[in-house]
Amino acid sequence: MSTETTAPAKPAKVLVGPDALRALVAGIFAARGARAEEAAAVADALVWANLRGVDSHGVSRVPRYLELFDKGESVPDAVPTVERPRAAIAIVDAHAAPGPVAMNRAVDEAIAGARECGIGWASVRGTVHTGAIGYYASRIADAGMAAIGVVAGVPNMAYTGAKGAAVATSPLAVAVPAAKHEAVLLDMATAVMALGRIAQLKAAGKELPPGVALTADGEPTTDPALAKIPTPVGGAKGAGMSLVFEMLASGLAANPIVPSYHSGAKEGRRHRQNGFLLAIDVAAFLPLEEFTATIDDTVDAIKSLPPAADTAEILIPGERGRRAARDRAATGIPLGPKVWRELTGIATTLDVPVPTPLG
Amino acid sequence: MSTETTAPAKPAKVLVGPDALRALVAGIFAARGARAEEAAAVADALVWANLRGVDSHGVSRVPRYLELFDKGESVPDAVPTVERPRAAIAIVDAHAAPGPVAMNRAVDEAIAGARECGIGWASVRGTVHTGAIGYYASRIADAGMAAIGVVAGVPNMAYTGAKGAAVATSPLAVAVPAAKHEAVLLDMATAVMALGRIAQLKAAGKELPPGVALTADGEPTTDPALAKIPTPVGGAKGAGMSLVFEMLASGLAANPIVPSYHSGAKEGRRHRQNGFLLAIDVAAFLPLEEFTATIDDTVDAIKSLPPAADTAEILIPGERGRRAARDRAATGIPLGPKVWRELTGIATTLDVPVPTPLG
Repeated sequence: MSTETTAPAKPAKVLVGPDALRALVAGIFAARGARAEEAAAVADALVWANLRGVDSHGVSRVPRYLELFDKGESVPDAVPTVERPRAAIAIVDAHAAPGPVAMNRAVDEAIAGARECGIGWASVRGTVHTGAIGYYASRIADAGMAAIGVVAGVPNMAYTGAKGAAVATSPLAVAVPAAKHEAVLLDMATAVMALGRIAQLKAAGKELPPGVALTADGEPTTDPALAKIPTPVGGAKGAGMSLVFEMLASGLAANPIVPSYHSGAKEGRRHRQNGFLLAIDVAAFLPLEEFTATIDDTVDAIKSLPPAADTAEILIPGERGRRAARDRAATGIPLGPKVWRELTGIATTLDVPVPTPLG
Repeated sequence: MSTETTAPAKPAKVLVGPDALRALVAGIFAARGARAEEAAAVADALVWANLRGVDSHGVSRVPRYLELFDKGESVPDAVPTVERPRAAIAIVDAHAAPGPVAMNRAVDEAIAGARECGIGWASVRGTVHTGAIGYYASRIADAGMAAIGVVAGVPNMAYTGAKGAAVATSPLAVAVPAAKHEAVLLDMATAVMALGRIAQLKAAGKELPPGVALTADGEPTTDPALAKIPTPVGGAKGAGMSLVFEMLASGLAANPIVPSYHSGAKEGRRHRQNGFLLAIDVAAFLPLEEFTATIDDTVDAIKSLPPAADTAEILIPGERGRRAARDRAATGIPLGPKVWRELTGIATTLDVPVPTPLG
């Protein structure tokens, strides 16, 4: 006996222009108490992710921020404070400000340290959802500097040999400025597949590739309905990266997450994130144009290699996202109907004007 | 018809005490023109790798160093020079000194920068084979600092979508000091499996696991005889890490390797390495004992998790190597007969005393 089901018609996406979407999100945050500048900063960070096709880190997160405001776990108008114990390092205490507010402050502090000392480090203590960390690394690259960034959060990923969620999918971003080419931007989770992508496959009812996720009991699964825990990239390598990222991001910020999470205390499971950004002032090492010419040459060398079978073009980290951003800036950002319904519902409740979709 | 072959008896390993092995290797380097201190430093870095069970990065490399001396590609008594263009950054020009000589200088410079500015960066330009990069990160952790280190070399690894060797297996090391526990030490190649391990399986005639290597033509293979190009860990993630590591390590040292390698010029294929080390002075952020207590707690939290099926013990990065080092320090370092024959042959030619093996 064969069973056949007809897939339900896929609900149409709503196309929204990036400026209109930024204004909508900034309006929502301002109505919830954020100062205008911070509201715009949060909107810019989220829409940046949507532009680049990383919708899991974009405006779909707005309801979650508001929920954190409601619970008092994030404070819309919190003003981060900064200590600078030595010339090249700063510690940005977010005081539960939204991620983009705290991380943008860290960008400025890292750049200031690097201008003075050649490199500058900013640790971020106690923020919430930072969005796509590549955004902050890119901002540093826009200043003609190279950047390394890490964010650590509440455990949601497997660790080799342990059952259940042990460490976070803590991402690493590296940005390197170029001249002819745009900045190279590596922005990767320490999981094989980002949680957002797993959720997308789940929503589409598609089977997961093998090796991507475990069940709640720690058994490997390709069934999206049973997939609860993403697995670390390269096994012990991804698990080890995530663990040392937690040690550096949370340890240096004096705000440990992993031991507190596993202590069993309710407080330990509260959503929170720490991070760090390192800015490297290239011009302190060699003339910036000599460096960026080398990066251009390196990009050209890789892109000119003979492609492998079934490969039309060899891509550089960040290239796919940049192309998506160019396309979406021109044609609009496609939002799922659920996200659009949530955002416009929130906006209406808060008396924030709702833009007219492009399509 | 079934064919049966009897495996040849495995030649016995030669057991050598670590002090004796260090003296032998230092004697060889000194006889080839290295100053006593540098000869001892090279010996210590190589024997460290053997102690930890990473024999591919240990004394088996001695003949290769001597070959580089013979060809003039490395200079046994080269004295690295240091520029410090800003307070937190140093550029160590190796002038083709052996890797451990240049990297040890970078350790000292990174620590000095960190003591003054909170963090310190040292780029290394134009050295050869650095050995296990974890050695240098560990030295920084021994000074109560956290460390991040990267080495970039001549392309030998695949890059997603490209045919043939495109980028290097450039390793990343992160070391974090602890108190009750020993320092956490992540030391990983950006390849799925290190070249040395592939070579070991090759030597043993064992089939490779799938996904580890490509043939010279870029086809996936599990046949050790055909495996020429290791694959990057996590596909585009490992490839991307390797590429940005080259950009940071070689770009900031003004000594690009990847574009020069792919230019087709003979000079571009010459063995050379660049690297960088970042030292983070934990005590500038928070009291060192508060930080190391957090690291101990984090290690305890992970090791206390319920183990996955078939797992006897959850391991922390660096733990396996540390145990091997304890065992091998007590019982001796097992060297393959070929390595022992080569080392003793070289020693005899150079009039360096050959120690008596332990077994």
